[in-house]
Amino acid sequence: MGSEEVIAKLKEFVASRDWDQFHTPENLAKSISIEAAELLELFQWGSPSDSGDIKEELADVLTYCFLLANKLGESPEKLVLEKLAVTSTKYPIEKSKGSSAKYDQL
Amino acid sequence: MGSEEVIAKLKEFVASRDWDQFHTPENLAKSISIEAAELLELFQWGSPSDSGDIKEELADVLTYCFLLANKLGESPEKLVLEKLAVTSTKYPIEKSKGSSAKYDQL
Amino acid sequence: MGSEEVIAKLKEFVASRDWDQFHTPENLAKSISIEAAELLELFQWGSPSDSGDIKEELADVLTYCFLLANKLGESPEKLVLEKLAVTSTKYPIEKSKGSSAKYDQL
Amino acid sequence: MGSEEVIAKLKEFVASRDWDQFHTPENLAKSISIEAAELLELFQWGSPSDSGDIKEELADVLTYCFLLANKLGESPEKLVLEKLAVTSTKYPIEKSKGSSAKYDQL
Repeated sequence: MGSEEVIAKLKEFVASRDWDQFHTPENLAKSISIEAAELLELFQWGSPSDSGDIKEELADVLTYCFLLANKLGESPEKLVLEKLAVTSTKYPIEKSKGSSAKYDQL
Repeated sequence: MGSEEVIAKLKEFVASRDWDQFHTPENLAKSISIEAAELLELFQWGSPSDSGDIKEELADVLTYCFLLANKLGESPEKLVLEKLAVTSTKYPIEKSKGSSAKYDQL
Repeated sequence: MGSEEVIAKLKEFVASRDWDQFHTPENLAKSISIEAAELLELFQWGSPSDSGDIKEELADVLTYCFLLANKLGESPEKLVLEKLAVTSTKYPIEKSKGSSAKYDQL
Repeated sequence: MGSEEVIAKLKEFVASRDWDQFHTPENLAKSISIEAAELLELFQWGSPSDSGDIKEELADVLTYCFLLANKLGESPEKLVLEKLAVTSTKYPIEKSKGSSAKYDQL
């Protein structure tokens, strides 16, 4: 199943609860940060033993990301691919291989 | 194009730079929070005029989410759908319609 | 120098730039998250070698925290102490000693 | 009461629970982001009615900030003041007055 079908289901879920009124781009951006921190909390003092929790928190981040992508009229896949093209240019293999340095410090 | 193909391209990008060594679940979780905040920064003092910036920052969050999903052996779509089933039960339509309250305060 | 004098200087800095109009509690809350992530970014792939960077990013988080405390009419010190009293009750020494578990899992 | 006394009390609280082992700079940085997002959550769909909640969540952010400042051997006040000097130079009054633009876009 592609993200298109998943997003259709998310939209149905949101519409049936009349929640679209809350889903401004700004509120979705806040929600992504909030859910990202809940994911991070699993690693606050070390690594969690239960990957089920990681999956659930990651799902929450992804859900709001999918909703925001949809608001912007884009598919998540297209966004990732387009950015990958940019990042590939910023991080040429020969300069960045094996290094975690930022592109402006390579 | 489904997320599977996109993730294959991400893995190729990562492998050719020998970056997999940096992509522990914890580092990916930190990265998701960091990129989520860069997205949020566009809304720090109001709404941005340029949706191109939003797309780029959202793409960064999605990229790390896709990489973490892949680390966990799951597809992003499946994670979102499974969580949607849980959330649908926590937020029955009749109780949550038109309300932004948390499920334990409905 | 106590935080009162520091906050007085921050208010002067803000007033002279006519920035108070941007400092709603919500915008300050967003700013705290944004700056917290810039601090976290220093640890994205490991520990930073330069503690000067950590100090600068921590200062940014603290600055917005001081401004928000001031908006709420409270001193940062009082807020921390009042919460410490609550936390001390939630985490009795005998149950929490040497454990990083959350209070509801002790 | 200055932050010095507050930090002394925090250190006592931490030492009596043998929690210093968990308080690496990285774990404190993660904790600051996590608590910042809990503060942000109060503003997820609008402004909260209860400023008591804001105070509690802000207190959590401040607590970890104070602990990290202490780890770095600095007082929170000094960090804020030193950064204020830098920021004042980056944002001259005549250029930044009434504007929420970043310094590199002034």
